[in-house]
Amino acid sequence: MARADYPQPVRDLIEELRRLPGVGPRSAERIALWLLQSAKAQPNALAESIQKAASGVASCPECGFFATVEGCPVCSAHGRDTGQLCVVEQATDVLPIERSGAFKGLYHCLGGKLSPLDNVGPDDLRIASLLKRVGRLPQVEIILALSADVEGEATANYLDGLLGDQDCSMTRLAQGLPAGGDLEHADALTVSRAFEGRR
Amino acid sequence: MARADYPQPVRDLIEELRRLPGVGPRSAERIALWLLQSAKAQPNALAESIQKAASGVASCPECGFFATVEGCPVCSAHGRDTGQLCVVEQATDVLPIERSGAFKGLYHCLGGKLSPLDNVGPDDLRIASLLKRVGRLPQVEIILALSADVEGEATANYLDGLLGDQDCSMTRLAQGLPAGGDLEHADALTVSRAFEGRR
Repeated sequence: MARADYPQPVRDLIEELRRLPGVGPRSAERIALWLLQSAKAQPNALAESIQKAASGVASCPECGFFATVEGCPVCSAHGRDTGQLCVVEQATDVLPIERSGAFKGLYHCLGGKLSPLDNVGPDDLRIASLLKRVGRLPQVEIILALSADVEGEATANYLDGLLGDQDCSMTRLAQGLPAGGDLEHADALTVSRAFEGRR
Repeated sequence: MARADYPQPVRDLIEELRRLPGVGPRSAERIALWLLQSAKAQPNALAESIQKAASGVASCPECGFFATVEGCPVCSAHGRDTGQLCVVEQATDVLPIERSGAFKGLYHCLGGKLSPLDNVGPDDLRIASLLKRVGRLPQVEIILALSADVEGEATANYLDGLLGDQDCSMTRLAQGLPAGGDLEHADALTVSRAFEGRR
């Protein structure tokens, strides 16, 4: 006799939930059973919000952030500083910068970083559209907010060479100790960059 | 100027995901962005599996486990021992027992345990249907697989009194040291019950 298992729709749901990032087999089962059993669960509201987001949200053709038919929350906002353009790797990098309150300008999401090992070259990134935007924004300050790793450095250097003869200035995010970080726990490269960037 | 945020459908999705058990604000954001950005994500398949499970799965009217129109995976299975009926609190308690392989009989899910503090009385549990089933299953062995806590004990005692004059025998799960558990880390009550139940 085979051991009893959940009905097929429940097993399918667990299988789909397991694919989500950070959700293991036990959490997937827990979430599925909660969705089916808890009085507080609203499975259809969840399903609907997934479908609405999947069908109603796309990349902003201008900056690459998330946009709807009503426009992009950044590009269509009033009062942003069009004299500054912050270049980030992913659309998901925008909100951490927004939340810091340190930047009021526009964004440009590259969609990744140069990585020959992963077959990501300049044509795979939104670099052509960056050049066009820079051409339309005279004397813009470009702030490269890319990862502090090898690929991020390579991408920054590539953009530096490409935009060097345009009518723009270019800066890069400072590297150094993270806020609240102490020297004792900082790695050698971070300490060395904190020394280089001292002021 | 307000800081930019995700478009409304993305925020709604994050809000719905946050309600899931074990999913905090950061995981909710991570899952939402993964669903919208990752090439591997299949948001519509996930939404569909939620809807299918929510609409196609209900409590088995006989035992209270999850069932579809095709029937209950336990009650409609061939070859199960109808001489044993295992009473559990929740439908979610069935699979752990099935996976142990220790039981081949039928189940009855009460839907909870007696808990005066939470206003859960006998009428809130599937006790009437348990009595009916026991009447239809002559000389059945009832195995109470309830929590080893105060409410579980109270529920077991209540069922004991109720089913005492029926044509059935009643046993309860053993309490003692968990498999692989050592004395050093066992609490006093567990050790005391392991002594009481020694054989």
